[in-house]
Amino acid sequence: MRYADTDQMGIVYNGVYFVYFEIGRTELLRECGLPYAEIERQGLMLPVLESHAVYKSPALYDDLLEIHTTFENVVKPTIRLDYKVFKNDVFVSEGYTIHSFLKAETRRPVRPPRIFHETIASYIEAKRSQ
Amino acid sequence: MRYADTDQMGIVYNGVYFVYFEIGRTELLRECGLPYAEIERQGLMLPVLESHAVYKSPALYDDLLEIHTTFENVVKPTIRLDYKVFKNDVFVSEGYTIHSFLKAETRRPVRPPRIFHETIASYIEAKRSQ
Amino acid sequence: MRYADTDQMGIVYNGVYFVYFEIGRTELLRECGLPYAEIERQGLMLPVLESHAVYKSPALYDDLLEIHTTFENVVKPTIRLDYKVFKNDVFVSEGYTIHSFLKAETRRPVRPPRIFHETIASYIEAKRSQ
Amino acid sequence: MRYADTDQMGIVYNGVYFVYFEIGRTELLRECGLPYAEIERQGLMLPVLESHAVYKSPALYDDLLEIHTTFENVVKPTIRLDYKVFKNDVFVSEGYTIHSFLKAETRRPVRPPRIFHETIASYIEAKRSQ
Repeated sequence: MRYADTDQMGIVYNGVYFVYFEIGRTELLRECGLPYAEIERQGLMLPVLESHAVYKSPALYDDLLEIHTTFENVVKPTIRLDYKVFKNDVFVSEGYTIHSFLKAETRRPVRPPRIFHETIASYIEAKRSQ
Repeated sequence: MRYADTDQMGIVYNGVYFVYFEIGRTELLRECGLPYAEIERQGLMLPVLESHAVYKSPALYDDLLEIHTTFENVVKPTIRLDYKVFKNDVFVSEGYTIHSFLKAETRRPVRPPRIFHETIASYIEAKRSQ
Repeated sequence: MRYADTDQMGIVYNGVYFVYFEIGRTELLRECGLPYAEIERQGLMLPVLESHAVYKSPALYDDLLEIHTTFENVVKPTIRLDYKVFKNDVFVSEGYTIHSFLKAETRRPVRPPRIFHETIASYIEAKRSQ
Repeated sequence: MRYADTDQMGIVYNGVYFVYFEIGRTELLRECGLPYAEIERQGLMLPVLESHAVYKSPALYDDLLEIHTTFENVVKPTIRLDYKVFKNDVFVSEGYTIHSFLKAETRRPVRPPRIFHETIASYIEAKRSQ
């Protein structure tokens, strides 16, 4: 990854993984046809309520990382995404983030729009059966 | 906090809290008389094995935050630090990090030096009884 | 400075200095009685048009840095701030940023409010004559 | 670009462009067959002595940016790279960085290895004549 992401231990700084998780989340949403920029244009926001990372093996400068993002399809007011980060076959990190849906205007929680659950679920279902 | 720490929701970006936790950790170690820079000079490193944050209330640009760091005094190969972040009386975030001790030269785990546990424990004990 | 600010050369990453300049800017504005958060509340923004840094001596983890910010008091549509960063007596970095004033609503440039120039100028004048 | 790169103006934070320049630099070196990771493995470092950016048009979250990096082929102790950042046809930013070569072991400046100048120059020449 980027030189800027490393620290003086010569490895990627622990807090940077949450940016990698964001990249995984962004890609998943884009691939489902629900890009996050579009979600914001519709007046919604998806702030993070909770985040967690486990560091298995250090990522180094210029490593090419792959981020696998999955979605917990349970109907509830919050949504959870899980991430696994790999460097070739090496398991680098795993973690999750939990998000609420907010109406941007009022900054108050709203239910995730039904289309949201359905679209991600059917996308992940389609991928699994490939 | 810094403008650089905010994102376009107008709040501090979720990954930045792990930098705040680092600041809390650094301060605790310095106050105990075990500054992290000194730990590294002695050939040890304290990489993060696991990190967790819960976001209670958003922090905004220019907010003055206070970070309370505590130490779990259990003798085991890893150490755990807990953080609570406040903005005046508002509870902004809490979280923890779990660290191992590595020998910098070999990057292999070593037992936390006894002095480490003792110093932090007696510091926290002293503070509690104030 | 923060561990997060370092890179694998073991020094503060070049891009991080622009965050230090931001800190210097924020402090200057606050001391003048014109905190940036207040400028934004009045519907104005101060985006950066140009930025420059010269790196004289590396800053390391846990270094205590001092940032001296000065203001170029010339009446024109943009404003320029100059920064010098020191570590004790060691000259670490210098640089500048040039900003325009934008009306937040329209994102169009406006003249710097007169009070802005006057307040900073008289603050710096007062400091110089101390 | 990444959500983490934005600030509360809703645009990419000024200091982040120096990370984009790093990405451009990394890509140029890799394409020339001189990846920066390899340069470090050979015991050299390329710290930044000076950096400059001009912001023409804001980059937003999720914008796809293209970074064009060029190399000033003048034989002297420092090297200069120039960057232009585009979003489709919109000119977003331009800037430059000046680097010295250091021997990692001693942290003392050394002349850029001749192969360095020759390789980049012939790569850029080859590209130009395409």
